[in-house]
Amino acid sequence: MTIKADWIAVDWGTSNMRAWAMSGSGTVLAEGSSDKGMGRLTPTEFEPTLLEVASEWIDGPTTVMACGMVGAKQGWIEAPYAAVPCAAMGGNLVTAPTQNPDLSVHIIPGVKQASPADVMRGEETQIAGFLARNPGWDGVICLPGTHTKWVHISADEIVSFQTFMTGELFEVIGKHTVLRHSVTSNDWDQAAFDSGLSDGMARPERIAAQLFSLRAQGLLDGLGNDAARARLSGLLIGAELAAAKPYWLGQQIAVIGAGGLSKLYVDALAAQSAPATQVNGTAITLAGLTAAYRAHKSDGIEGSRQ
Amino acid sequence: MTIKADWIAVDWGTSNMRAWAMSGSGTVLAEGSSDKGMGRLTPTEFEPTLLEVASEWIDGPTTVMACGMVGAKQGWIEAPYAAVPCAAMGGNLVTAPTQNPDLSVHIIPGVKQASPADVMRGEETQIAGFLARNPGWDGVICLPGTHTKWVHISADEIVSFQTFMTGELFEVIGKHTVLRHSVTSNDWDQAAFDSGLSDGMARPERIAAQLFSLRAQGLLDGLGNDAARARLSGLLIGAELAAAKPYWLGQQIAVIGAGGLSKLYVDALAAQSAPATQVNGTAITLAGLTAAYRAHKSDGIEGSRQ
Repeated sequence: MTIKADWIAVDWGTSNMRAWAMSGSGTVLAEGSSDKGMGRLTPTEFEPTLLEVASEWIDGPTTVMACGMVGAKQGWIEAPYAAVPCAAMGGNLVTAPTQNPDLSVHIIPGVKQASPADVMRGEETQIAGFLARNPGWDGVICLPGTHTKWVHISADEIVSFQTFMTGELFEVIGKHTVLRHSVTSNDWDQAAFDSGLSDGMARPERIAAQLFSLRAQGLLDGLGNDAARARLSGLLIGAELAAAKPYWLGQQIAVIGAGGLSKLYVDALAAQSAPATQVNGTAITLAGLTAAYRAHKSDGIEGSRQ
Repeated sequence: MTIKADWIAVDWGTSNMRAWAMSGSGTVLAEGSSDKGMGRLTPTEFEPTLLEVASEWIDGPTTVMACGMVGAKQGWIEAPYAAVPCAAMGGNLVTAPTQNPDLSVHIIPGVKQASPADVMRGEETQIAGFLARNPGWDGVICLPGTHTKWVHISADEIVSFQTFMTGELFEVIGKHTVLRHSVTSNDWDQAAFDSGLSDGMARPERIAAQLFSLRAQGLLDGLGNDAARARLSGLLIGAELAAAKPYWLGQQIAVIGAGGLSKLYVDALAAQSAPATQVNGTAITLAGLTAAYRAHKSDGIEGSRQ
């Protein structure tokens, strides 16, 4: 059975890419993925990688809408950032060079902030997807991940945002420091997470000491790896919530992301009397790419009418 | 020329060991080192490693005084921690098993604290060395390094202490995160360190955001690697100084350690109107090992008199 895509949606990050064959009405017809993320590719390798995943969906001229690190300086082609305050997809699409004349690849630019210096690539598309589904929504969007982002939305624009390296710190501390033997675990101790969260929020400046104390508690008190791992996560997320409080306090909050990590943020915010809505990340990415595709298509139609 | 040691001093850490041939009066006759730290050795491999470095200093029965991770559970033999409050070398020496009957190896135990859970191995010997040279000294000793320690000394005892993973965080963030391309540099930008220190002290909870901002400043403002590296160091040390303020505020302060890192702490404290004395780390380690040797020898003489 052959699937012919009306257009193709692509989310191309640093470490992997995902692609969806889409119908004109925005239905997913098929999906594929590759571990050839932007970090592994030179500019001329993006097109063959896309075709490895999507070639059988292509029959004739096909539009591709792509977001993420594919538009970075080291990506397929650089898509210059839009500057806040701006609409989530406020920048101009950039057309990537292709060998295959049937392919028309458009890259959604990221968003930058001058001070404090900050950047995003990919999240702007999720934010646009969320706003397309929730017109007129004002508040704060949290996007947990390797580099968690807090984004203030007002009047359909990104007003400001702040990125925390919390997820990446959790990973490198667990893999590369003296704690690596203390936090390797597949289990989860919710009570240890909760107490770490509370301590991290209350005394965020003490993180570097509290980390070493995890090691000492393992040596002296027999603290188990599951408890140490959950407490490490709680300490780091707690310190982030303390610093991000000016963002979330008293605001309507949406947390975008699937699964466990986002749930931890939602629960932690709830414990602070800050209820947050959790939204599926993949669905929201597709909503954003679909919004970008429709805007591009209507631009084209308007252009041809002129 | 053959050197005969009256006794041998050893500082055996996780990643390397250093040994000194000592005269009875405490003069260094020769020195050697090995990269066979505790982390690379099984218990039976310590003696051959010591002999690789020190065998030519040995002629007849010889006492060896050793400190550091050599006394950890995974070391030559475990030397159980003394518990605070206690004298710096308040624990009992532990004799390590040897094949060579001429070798009499004594390991200085570390110090533990129940709450907040914390441990040290090696630093207690430096602290004892410092106190041997400065009898009756009260105040706070800071020992910068991979795991920086702040130690409150009163009435010749360690009252309490706190370890910060600042040095290790600086290393893994620089090597294993997205910042690795931003902070690789052999140069140093003192102004960037100073501003990072100030920001880290003022808003220590924002560390995870300020780290990502280093990356964004590189992308958007062309922040150079030397400035980014120095600012990263400043941010982390600043957050530590904020958290350690209950230790150093209003106290007499000594910073033990050679070279650049300790100098950064001394300068940072001076900027907070907290003058600190910098003390050479190796000399202080030897002073501590010498004090341990003399105490052990006089115990032995007293023992033989009984």
